[in-house]
Amino acid sequence: MLVFRDPQKLQRWALKQREAGVRVGLVPTMGYLHEGHLSLIAAAKKYADAVVVSVFVNPIQFGPNEDFEKYPRDEKADLAKCRAAGAAAVFLPTPQTMYAPDASVHVTEEVLANRLCGLRRPGHFRGVCTVVAKLFNLAQPNVAVFGQKDFQQACVIRRMVRDLNFPIRIVVAPIVREPDGLARSSRNTYLSETERQQAVGLSRSLHLAKRLFREGQTSAKRIVARMVKSLEADGLQVDYVEIVDAETLDPVKTVQKGNAVLLAVYDGKTRLIDNCLFS
Amino acid sequence: MLVFRDPQKLQRWALKQREAGVRVGLVPTMGYLHEGHLSLIAAAKKYADAVVVSVFVNPIQFGPNEDFEKYPRDEKADLAKCRAAGAAAVFLPTPQTMYAPDASVHVTEEVLANRLCGLRRPGHFRGVCTVVAKLFNLAQPNVAVFGQKDFQQACVIRRMVRDLNFPIRIVVAPIVREPDGLARSSRNTYLSETERQQAVGLSRSLHLAKRLFREGQTSAKRIVARMVKSLEADGLQVDYVEIVDAETLDPVKTVQKGNAVLLAVYDGKTRLIDNCLFS
Repeated sequence: MLVFRDPQKLQRWALKQREAGVRVGLVPTMGYLHEGHLSLIAAAKKYADAVVVSVFVNPIQFGPNEDFEKYPRDEKADLAKCRAAGAAAVFLPTPQTMYAPDASVHVTEEVLANRLCGLRRPGHFRGVCTVVAKLFNLAQPNVAVFGQKDFQQACVIRRMVRDLNFPIRIVVAPIVREPDGLARSSRNTYLSETERQQAVGLSRSLHLAKRLFREGQTSAKRIVARMVKSLEADGLQVDYVEIVDAETLDPVKTVQKGNAVLLAVYDGKTRLIDNCLFS
Repeated sequence: MLVFRDPQKLQRWALKQREAGVRVGLVPTMGYLHEGHLSLIAAAKKYADAVVVSVFVNPIQFGPNEDFEKYPRDEKADLAKCRAAGAAAVFLPTPQTMYAPDASVHVTEEVLANRLCGLRRPGHFRGVCTVVAKLFNLAQPNVAVFGQKDFQQACVIRRMVRDLNFPIRIVVAPIVREPDGLARSSRNTYLSETERQQAVGLSRSLHLAKRLFREGQTSAKRIVARMVKSLEADGLQVDYVEIVDAETLDPVKTVQKGNAVLLAVYDGKTRLIDNCLFS
C-alpha cells in the first residue's frame, strides 16, 4: 500500500493511473476509521481498480467553536485498517500541505448547503466542497464514495459534481450501525457511558418515523412531533428534525416514499446526526 | 476539426485523449475571434498535441447592466478561424447546456478578485472562475492558455489552479495589438470612428508610464497621475489606473521591474482595458 503525504506526489501517481487506464476510487475521510469507513472502501473496490483513502481532518469545515482540535486522530491504526481493507493508497496531507497561507479560492453550494446542518454550521459545506474539489483534482478518481450518514453532504457533493462537471461517479453507501442501532461515527468516542446509552434514541426515533409512515401517517408535522417527543424522552436535546425531498432537501408537508428524515441532536455536549429514507 | 456542442460528448472525447496520452490544450474564449485569440491557439499548440477552443459567451460573468446581449457573436467565422489555426476541436455550448436551471455551485476567489475590475464588476470573477473550472473538467486539458490582455483574470485563474489543485499548466500569452497600439478585443467593434481614434490613448498612456519609469520615476502616484492626464487628454474617461504587484495585485507605492500597470477607461460607452509590465 502506498502512503502519500505530499499532494503533488499523489497527483502525479493518480494521473499515471488514469493514463494507464486504471480506474481510481476515492474514499475521503477524516480518519479515526471505523466499520462505516471500511464499508466505503469495500464499496469503492466494486467500482475501481485502485482505491485511495484520504485521511484529513479538514480545518476549514470546522467552525471556530467546533471540535477541530479535539477531533480524534490515530494515523497508525488508520493505516493498518486501510491496508487490511485492501486500499491501494492512503493520502495523509496536513493543513499546511493542503492550504497555502494565502489560499483564497473556495467552492460554494448556495441552496442545499443553506439548510439543516448548513444553517447551524455556517461555512461548513463551503469547507467540505472546497476540500473535496481539491481531493478530486489530486486523486483523479473515476468514482468517489461517501456515506449516507452525512446525507446532506452527499447531496451537496452530488450537486457540486453536476454543476462543475467533474467526470466522477458519486456512490453513496448505506449507514453502518452498532448492534443497538447507533450509527457509527468517529464522534461517538466523545460519549460518556450514559450518553452512549441515550444515543440509541436517534435510531429509535427513525424507527418510530418509519413505523408511523407504514401505518399510514403522512403528515410530516405529526411524524416530526412524535420523533421530537421520543428524542427528548431519551434525554437528547433536539437541534433539528426535518422531513425533506431526498434530492433537493426541500421540506415536505406530506411524506412520500423516497423522502428522507434527517435529524441532529445534542447528546450531552456531543452533536450527533442520523437519517433514513421512507420506503 | 471536431465540433462539440454537448458538454458530455466533449468530456468523453477529452477523457479518451488523456487515456491515450494525448496532451490536450484548452483556449477558453467568448468567440468573435481575432488575432489575439489566434495567438493563444498558436501558443497552446506549442504545449499540446490537441487544442480545444471553447467559444462561449458566459452569461454569469456579466453584470445586469453589462453587454451580455449585445456581445458580438459569429459562430461561422469562429469555426473557420479555428480550423485555419489548426484547432483539434471547438466546443460550442449554450447557457442551457452549461447551466442547469437550478445550478447552485460556484467557485470564488476572494482576494485578487476584489480589486480593480472586480470592484467595478461584482460577481464577474466568480462567473469566470466557475465557467473555467467547468471547462477544465470538461476539456481535461494539460495546459490552458489565457491572454495577458485580461491580466487580472489570468492572476485569478492561476490562483484557482493553485488553490484547487487542478493538474493544469497555465500559460499567459502576450497582448496582440493593432498597428497603432490598440490591444485587440472583440469589444473594439463597439467603437465609432472617433472613439476608435481616441482608443489609441490606452497604449499611449502605457508607453508614457514605461518611459517615465525608464527615466527614473519610481513613484506610482506620479506615474499614475501623468497617465490619467494623458488618457483624459485623449478624450477617455478613466475608470481606474493602478500599479500593482504582478502576482498579488497589491498596489505598490514604489515601482519596481516586474510590477504591472493596469487600466480601465470608458471610450464613449465602451469600457476598454489594457496593461503592461514594467521592465
